[in-house]
Amino acid sequence: MKTTVFNALEKESHTFNGGPAKGVTGRILIGEAMGAPHFCMRLFELSPDGHTPAHTHDWEHEIFFHEGQGELLADGIWEKVERGSAAFIPGGATHQIKNTGTSPLIFICLVPKGAPEL
Amino acid sequence: MKTTVFNALEKESHTFNGGPAKGVTGRILIGEAMGAPHFCMRLFELSPDGHTPAHTHDWEHEIFFHEGQGELLADGIWEKVERGSAAFIPGGATHQIKNTGTSPLIFICLVPKGAPEL
Repeated sequence: MKTTVFNALEKESHTFNGGPAKGVTGRILIGEAMGAPHFCMRLFELSPDGHTPAHTHDWEHEIFFHEGQGELLADGIWEKVERGSAAFIPGGATHQIKNTGTSPLIFICLVPKGAPEL
Repeated sequence: MKTTVFNALEKESHTFNGGPAKGVTGRILIGEAMGAPHFCMRLFELSPDGHTPAHTHDWEHEIFFHEGQGELLADGIWEKVERGSAAFIPGGATHQIKNTGTSPLIFICLVPKGAPEL
């Protein structure tokens, strides 16, 4: 298996903009297609006023905020996040992320193998 | 288990500045102490002229570059990386990262559970 180095924004993007999601663009950066054996790295971009759905699942998230400003719903409380914030969301916790700034909110979000990659 | 939201730079840092490492500061952001069940997120900062050791191990890395400019040794070739680059380094691949810029090179590097966290 080879080492792979790439620009994250060159990866194929998928936009979610309906129902409970608004202005969400997601990319699988490192996953099963690349041979990742244990966990999957995705990049998400929320447009200003964008938000993910509030949702719950059995698997955890490990998140690092690369750019922008927003809030993360954690155990019923909205907490501020910004460039350089990180978050651990354990399996079973209801969570949601929204952009509260005027520029894109960009973050890395990882899930264990077996969870949907996007 | 609770959701945890925090500023990455508030985590305890460890500096590696001797032998084959130069100007490397590492932080465990999300690991076993926080209850992470499958993988561990670390933050590394390389000072200008800093570099990690060239090394090899059985586990993979999933890396996202948050800030700065540098190069990553991948299968014997130095490849440029910068803010927004990502890299998958499979287990068994010799790898090294160096800062080639004038500001810190900051990146997130994840390892599977069972690998040393720092």
